[in-house]
Amino acid sequence: MASTKPPSGMRDFLPKDKELREYVMRVIREEYARNGFTEIETSQLENLSNLENSDGGDNTKLIFKILKRGEKLNLSMSTNSESDLADLGLRFDLTLPLSRFYANNRNELPSVFKAIQMGYVFRAERPQKGRYRSFIQCDVDVIGDESNLTEIELINTVGRSLTRLGLNDLTIKINDRRILKGLVVAAGFQSDQFSDIAIILDKLDKIGRDGIIQEMLDKGYAHSNIEKLLALSNELETKGIEAAKPLSQEGYDNLKQILTVIESIQDGFKIKFDYSLVRGMGYYTSTIFEVFYGALGYAVGGGGRYDEMIGKMSGVDAPACGFSIGFERIIDILREENHDIPTGTRLALFYDPNQDLSAVMKSAIELRDTFSVVSVFAKKKKFSKQVDRLKEQGFDAFSVFGDEINIKELT
Amino acid sequence: MASTKPPSGMRDFLPKDKELREYVMRVIREEYARNGFTEIETSQLENLSNLENSDGGDNTKLIFKILKRGEKLNLSMSTNSESDLADLGLRFDLTLPLSRFYANNRNELPSVFKAIQMGYVFRAERPQKGRYRSFIQCDVDVIGDESNLTEIELINTVGRSLTRLGLNDLTIKINDRRILKGLVVAAGFQSDQFSDIAIILDKLDKIGRDGIIQEMLDKGYAHSNIEKLLALSNELETKGIEAAKPLSQEGYDNLKQILTVIESIQDGFKIKFDYSLVRGMGYYTSTIFEVFYGALGYAVGGGGRYDEMIGKMSGVDAPACGFSIGFERIIDILREENHDIPTGTRLALFYDPNQDLSAVMKSAIELRDTFSVVSVFAKKKKFSKQVDRLKEQGFDAFSVFGDEINIKELT
Repeated sequence: MASTKPPSGMRDFLPKDKELREYVMRVIREEYARNGFTEIETSQLENLSNLENSDGGDNTKLIFKILKRGEKLNLSMSTNSESDLADLGLRFDLTLPLSRFYANNRNELPSVFKAIQMGYVFRAERPQKGRYRSFIQCDVDVIGDESNLTEIELINTVGRSLTRLGLNDLTIKINDRRILKGLVVAAGFQSDQFSDIAIILDKLDKIGRDGIIQEMLDKGYAHSNIEKLLALSNELETKGIEAAKPLSQEGYDNLKQILTVIESIQDGFKIKFDYSLVRGMGYYTSTIFEVFYGALGYAVGGGGRYDEMIGKMSGVDAPACGFSIGFERIIDILREENHDIPTGTRLALFYDPNQDLSAVMKSAIELRDTFSVVSVFAKKKKFSKQVDRLKEQGFDAFSVFGDEINIKELT
Repeated sequence: MASTKPPSGMRDFLPKDKELREYVMRVIREEYARNGFTEIETSQLENLSNLENSDGGDNTKLIFKILKRGEKLNLSMSTNSESDLADLGLRFDLTLPLSRFYANNRNELPSVFKAIQMGYVFRAERPQKGRYRSFIQCDVDVIGDESNLTEIELINTVGRSLTRLGLNDLTIKINDRRILKGLVVAAGFQSDQFSDIAIILDKLDKIGRDGIIQEMLDKGYAHSNIEKLLALSNELETKGIEAAKPLSQEGYDNLKQILTVIESIQDGFKIKFDYSLVRGMGYYTSTIFEVFYGALGYAVGGGGRYDEMIGKMSGVDAPACGFSIGFERIIDILREENHDIPTGTRLALFYDPNQDLSAVMKSAIELRDTFSVVSVFAKKKKFSKQVDRLKEQGFDAFSVFGDEINIKELT
């Protein structure tokens, strides 16, 4: 074997890590399902042309491509062109597969389709610490509902899932693209300058007011417009959502209702209007949101409404809104903070190789009604060494066959 | 989008299918874990050289290979050789990854390592009905224990898992390669003719005694040896395991203990010595087993002891034994037999768009303590049509906000 390590940027998971990953997936699955979402799964491999011709931006440059096989490969090798050599690719997100799935199956899906997707995506990025070439994405999307019941259900569901995982200091920031657009236009900018202005505004947290003024001046924007933008921003900052009303009535009505409902039902997480929230993706049409944990400077999840994308990608028009949890970030937080996950009591049952194995197994099977795990081991000569290692192997107690009443807890 | 279907031989899963798959995985996971197994996960991508230079037999011809990227690809394209174009491949089984994982992590693993692996493998086979190019394998392996406690634990664990899934007519057939070998030698064949003879003997169920005689004669084996083989087989058939004693004392002792213990603890499944069980894989060293369901002519799972393979593949010697469940076959059976899976009661809660959404959501959240699923829907004009579709969407009951006491069951 050339190397016993996984390929560069890929990972194996030891039992302790895998247990945490499965636990987090189970909690998310259960909470999402309770709220009326149903899980689907799409193929990890997609036709390469679908991936390459998609709206995926830079991700389309990071596709792991699958070499053609057999005769098709022989034919392609003579042309000596990269695009001819491959016919399939590993998916780089779950959004393109969802659009394809929806277009393919819409007749079998309810008119309001509340979908869970959890699975690996693959990106051929340069590997670096904390960035992997294969990682789990965890999305919930509602297709077919244009009302903001959707946003409310998504925020409530994701908030409760993360709270159930033990993340207690969560803030969901929310904005509406239409308010942002109103702000830019009210400040005197052209409507087609929106994206550019929004991208700069997005840096407010990082570079401050002065930094923003400088960057806009550098780009040749009028000083008066910049001043107006910052004055209006200031008002949004101090007065909150009420100041958004003159900028976009629709955006205001939408956010006002979401904020009111979520504030009345929230449990363990906060929601906050943030006019400076932009989110990069061009496809969002109105509501956008991100979830922050404690003092962490980056979001651990986010999403928004994208009413046009499904139609554009799949030819089937449908309003849609989604929320994606940064699964790998959640795992990192839970690991760093050493969160306990509920495991029950794990028992090691030892026996002497000359004892009757039928009786030993019967005892193990009975003990499995009481303990969450019972693992049977043959006693070795150096029994005390065996016992010393149990704790690090995740056991909470042990017992010796024939003396099961005498269960010793490991401390 | 070129096509909205998944690539040839790949699958998407609708909510109902995905729910069954997740249910089966959860039951297997839980039962395995209760019996002391811990789950690991390995990368779905492997270095191509590891896959190509492995013991994987025909599967090494079915590798989905990943095209090199960037400069490395440019360099390789000039050589115009297939083997230069790819550097990674999708795994075709979970055994090679397990060996690699074990060699890489053995210092962090317990001396007796009881591993669960569940995940996708990929094979570029010609797609046909019921055969997929991407499917889930579901393996349990014990590495580091040469005693047959391992076989007993594996059979007990897999038997109970399948029973818990509602498969009630299970038979686990068991044999020992050393008995098979003893049989072949006792009949007068050369020891190096073992594999060839075993492969023919394996067809007993299909072609009968006469078919076997003919095939052996065709291959030039002596009539007297064939007669002796069939006479000894007959004895094994009628007298059972006791007739195996003169053929291999070790094999007899091994099977006798496994049979005795499993018969004393079995619950919902049967175990049976079957001298004609061969299993194709060359790497099995002693115990082999397969699990059969009802009258189905093929095994739904199987495995055995492979004490030499880990050392050969990874350079780290370790006795090992594994049992693999045919996950996709189990799914097919449960679907065909329409097995009920426990889901709790699923409620659809309707509201009128002019009602207070905060109050609606509060009601939904409360109802989620009682019902396993509560999904909120805006009432449409054609309410009776909405209700008519609920059953096929998986709901068991519905209620209208403001009248929650009045929950109507769907029949």
